[in-house]
Amino acid sequence: MRFRSPATLAGPVRLAFTAESSAELPMTAERPRPRRREDFVHWLPIQTRWMDNDAYGHVNNVVYYSYFDTAVNEYLIRSGALDIEASDVIGLVVETACSYFSELAFPQALEAGVRAAHIGRSSVRYEVGIFAAGAATASAQGHFVHVYVDRANRKPAPLPEALRTALDRIHS
Amino acid sequence: MRFRSPATLAGPVRLAFTAESSAELPMTAERPRPRRREDFVHWLPIQTRWMDNDAYGHVNNVVYYSYFDTAVNEYLIRSGALDIEASDVIGLVVETACSYFSELAFPQALEAGVRAAHIGRSSVRYEVGIFAAGAATASAQGHFVHVYVDRANRKPAPLPEALRTALDRIHS
Amino acid sequence: MRFRSPATLAGPVRLAFTAESSAELPMTAERPRPRRREDFVHWLPIQTRWMDNDAYGHVNNVVYYSYFDTAVNEYLIRSGALDIEASDVIGLVVETACSYFSELAFPQALEAGVRAAHIGRSSVRYEVGIFAAGAATASAQGHFVHVYVDRANRKPAPLPEALRTALDRIHS
Amino acid sequence: MRFRSPATLAGPVRLAFTAESSAELPMTAERPRPRRREDFVHWLPIQTRWMDNDAYGHVNNVVYYSYFDTAVNEYLIRSGALDIEASDVIGLVVETACSYFSELAFPQALEAGVRAAHIGRSSVRYEVGIFAAGAATASAQGHFVHVYVDRANRKPAPLPEALRTALDRIHS
Repeated sequence: MRFRSPATLAGPVRLAFTAESSAELPMTAERPRPRRREDFVHWLPIQTRWMDNDAYGHVNNVVYYSYFDTAVNEYLIRSGALDIEASDVIGLVVETACSYFSELAFPQALEAGVRAAHIGRSSVRYEVGIFAAGAATASAQGHFVHVYVDRANRKPAPLPEALRTALDRIHS
Repeated sequence: MRFRSPATLAGPVRLAFTAESSAELPMTAERPRPRRREDFVHWLPIQTRWMDNDAYGHVNNVVYYSYFDTAVNEYLIRSGALDIEASDVIGLVVETACSYFSELAFPQALEAGVRAAHIGRSSVRYEVGIFAAGAATASAQGHFVHVYVDRANRKPAPLPEALRTALDRIHS
Repeated sequence: MRFRSPATLAGPVRLAFTAESSAELPMTAERPRPRRREDFVHWLPIQTRWMDNDAYGHVNNVVYYSYFDTAVNEYLIRSGALDIEASDVIGLVVETACSYFSELAFPQALEAGVRAAHIGRSSVRYEVGIFAAGAATASAQGHFVHVYVDRANRKPAPLPEALRTALDRIHS
Repeated sequence: MRFRSPATLAGPVRLAFTAESSAELPMTAERPRPRRREDFVHWLPIQTRWMDNDAYGHVNNVVYYSYFDTAVNEYLIRSGALDIEASDVIGLVVETACSYFSELAFPQALEAGVRAAHIGRSSVRYEVGIFAAGAATASAQGHFVHVYVDRANRKPAPLPEALRTALDRIHS
């Protein structure tokens, strides 16, 4: 879709989104290229919400990070890798980033692709791509880094075994 | 589920929700009774997000209204009833309310049931129930009222025809 | 302000809000009247955020409830009434509602007025008004009801003493 | 503050935050160092909200980006640099990132420091630091890049003059 012209943002909004009409955001030399579906291992459908659209009528840049959070935590919980109550180790987010390539907007159906790009002794780097449903390339992509620490003394600690197993399955 | 005890809120959270374990919020004499599935006409699956859970580890009371907004606007857009660019009439939310009966939490799968409970000359009252997927009774339910007004002079105006048609299909 | 016309929603948005230009939402016979400043006891300035504005360029109806939540919890925490770790009693939201009278939008400065309208044995009814900074009447107003229950058996329990003291100070 | 232990997350949360008690997130060789107050030019107080806290009882990593958005757009609107309705040029977010150093949580008072780190022909790189009120170093810091494009053909376009003037004032 084109960025909504003034007329289309008026009153109740016309939201007839199609993949081919997505506004392409400008590319610059140093920007990453949009990733393709084959770059990701685990997938979660993402449902957009009315409130995801900001005053410009498209998904606000902030909201993509809630898709990241949801896709990764959903995988970890379904894998039994977040049930570490008995553990002395917890994960902290220390870095996030996102590049935006084309617009998305409610009520589009989206998909999040996830992979574990780096699995260290006590940290994990996840990469996530946000795709319009069925699209070949990502509309936005980013990463975030979890560091696992001892709950008591806050020093980096080895990844719990159940987590490492879950991560190995999405490592690429 | 029981409301998370201190232990279950620790570190990465154990989120093994089941319908039968949902905390029942206290009933009082004047509270409405939870509605049943047959009270609603149109359904939309609702995906929870990590951020929906607040510091108590359950979906925050505010977030239910974003489910309402999403369920109704999704229906109107899919029905072609929100494409009234050419129209001089726009819809404003003038009242919302919600009653809460039992806890929900990410990563639970939810369903929103919608009906148009009252269709007036220039206003609509929607009723929405939020159900754990497959549950017989609503975990929360509420309503909101749209009033349609002339875009220029802000006076109440008749519902557009396409909207009225869409509303008739979910009237009960 | 008038609801943003198509032109004003285009691209970067003109947001020159003034109290006298706020759109008045239609009144109907059965609607409550906007409350006045003297109807509330405790005040908290509320800062709007870019993301509060939805695709219509005004604060989304959902977001008002996050103002309610923030105003009441801020008061309770500052009063020492939410530090009941040692207590066996916790508060649950069982009902919320809001009526909307006129538009607000980022970057407007707002104020939330709070009062405890009813203090029962185990429940509290808060009423909250959201005002444009300095305005005489509320742009929106609502209420929410907390019921306090025994943490273990979920049965209604008396309000903790520190909470009751804090509530008495904003009772009207 | 220490990351909330299980006990402190129980029921109504004890939120007695002090600067010296903030949990320090682990540093690694390649991580940036927390910036200091003197690294930023323009300041905006940031009010936290109850909903900013996630299930861990601290401000969710996503929410920091809504602080960024709010701080920058507030500056641009107050400077008259976002009122470019008559212009054919609009700004798009193409990249965001954030590093997290220590926890923050509602109801803490925060401050956002902003500077324009790079002002190009058609793009701007903002850097933003989020500080506990009065703190010497940032709890989190990040950047985001706006590219300005022709509204019609989406090709990069020169920054509007009013925007360039506003940016020059926060350039460092």
